[in-house]
Amino acid sequence: MKIDVRRNILEANQKLALENAEFFKANRVLAVNVMASPGAGKTSTILATIERLAPQASFKVIEGDIASSIDTDKIAARGIAVLQINTGNMCHLDAPMIGRVLQRFDYDAPSILFIENVGNLVCPAEFGIGADLNIVIASVPEGHDKPAKYPAIFMKSDAILLNKIDSRDSEEFDRPLFLETTQGLNRSAPCFEISCRTGAGLDAWCGWLLEKFQAKCL
Amino acid sequence: MKIDVRRNILEANQKLALENAEFFKANRVLAVNVMASPGAGKTSTILATIERLAPQASFKVIEGDIASSIDTDKIAARGIAVLQINTGNMCHLDAPMIGRVLQRFDYDAPSILFIENVGNLVCPAEFGIGADLNIVIASVPEGHDKPAKYPAIFMKSDAILLNKIDSRDSEEFDRPLFLETTQGLNRSAPCFEISCRTGAGLDAWCGWLLEKFQAKCL
Repeated sequence: MKIDVRRNILEANQKLALENAEFFKANRVLAVNVMASPGAGKTSTILATIERLAPQASFKVIEGDIASSIDTDKIAARGIAVLQINTGNMCHLDAPMIGRVLQRFDYDAPSILFIENVGNLVCPAEFGIGADLNIVIASVPEGHDKPAKYPAIFMKSDAILLNKIDSRDSEEFDRPLFLETTQGLNRSAPCFEISCRTGAGLDAWCGWLLEKFQAKCL
Repeated sequence: MKIDVRRNILEANQKLALENAEFFKANRVLAVNVMASPGAGKTSTILATIERLAPQASFKVIEGDIASSIDTDKIAARGIAVLQINTGNMCHLDAPMIGRVLQRFDYDAPSILFIENVGNLVCPAEFGIGADLNIVIASVPEGHDKPAKYPAIFMKSDAILLNKIDSRDSEEFDRPLFLETTQGLNRSAPCFEISCRTGAGLDAWCGWLLEKFQAKCL
């Protein structure tokens, strides 16, 4: 019984995720689902990426949060089109939540849409939202064991970002073990080691993303 | 329909949480539910606390993880009684999971039982497990805005710990704003600012916990 309810919810979600994907295709949107623990640097990565790629693409952002509009305010302050979804007690974004707000953007030019999921390494991995790319951001202060402890989200991601490589915690962070674990879980996802604070590694990540955008939308 | 399923699950959980609480009382256990984001320092805090209070209390640990036994191995290596619960794709511990393993410890002396929840600032707040104390650990690298973004878990906690106060990120961390937000959400929970790396602040936290243990179990 419990399993059936769960399966029904996931199947209904998947159906709407496919509708979102159709909408993105029709409107020349590359949708990027950004997943991470609380405080790993989702908003910082989105802002740093937009800053670098603004000359080459148009951008939109959907912010998913349990509560508050802190990140939305940060993004709106830069003049970027942004919508807030407050999920209340829901620990992840799902396809219907995204579908309900998509009509509220303008789609005059091809664009990259960042969808910042709720800070959580578990549930967002289970609920597809129809994005073209799913990415997970780990961060050095969280420790090198996160892929081993939360494998599903690393397995389902198209790229893995490791943020805060300038952190002092990097002395205790076993980088080879982190890379070996993520490779073992997901051989096809590239891993970009970045620091949103110093800008390190962002060019490689942005280059990869731009290529995906151009291949789909131009 | 969806709401009813949810309510039924929460009600069934609450019933078993009360049974766990009865078990703890009968066996002179102070049970502490430890909640936090991935990588905030749950295991480090548990180990540092046990090290300080070992002369005054007996300890047990239950480790909740999606996958792996990394933390259980760390704790067992110190000779502490520990049980692993792997939740699979479940993003939190619930009362039945705890109830199923409780019989496997010895209860010859009064003890403190740490129950390390899955790393997640959302779902663990909703599912009581019958613990005497619920605590949440935030950490400086996660940023000062976590209480505003994940209010429920801060509202439901009996103590709030802020870990990694020695982090270099503390330059960007707005400590007054963090304290003001947590106070606004939860006036009765003390906030302990700690560093498991340097030992700062641990005496105050351990003193508070020991008092709770003595009041209940001795």
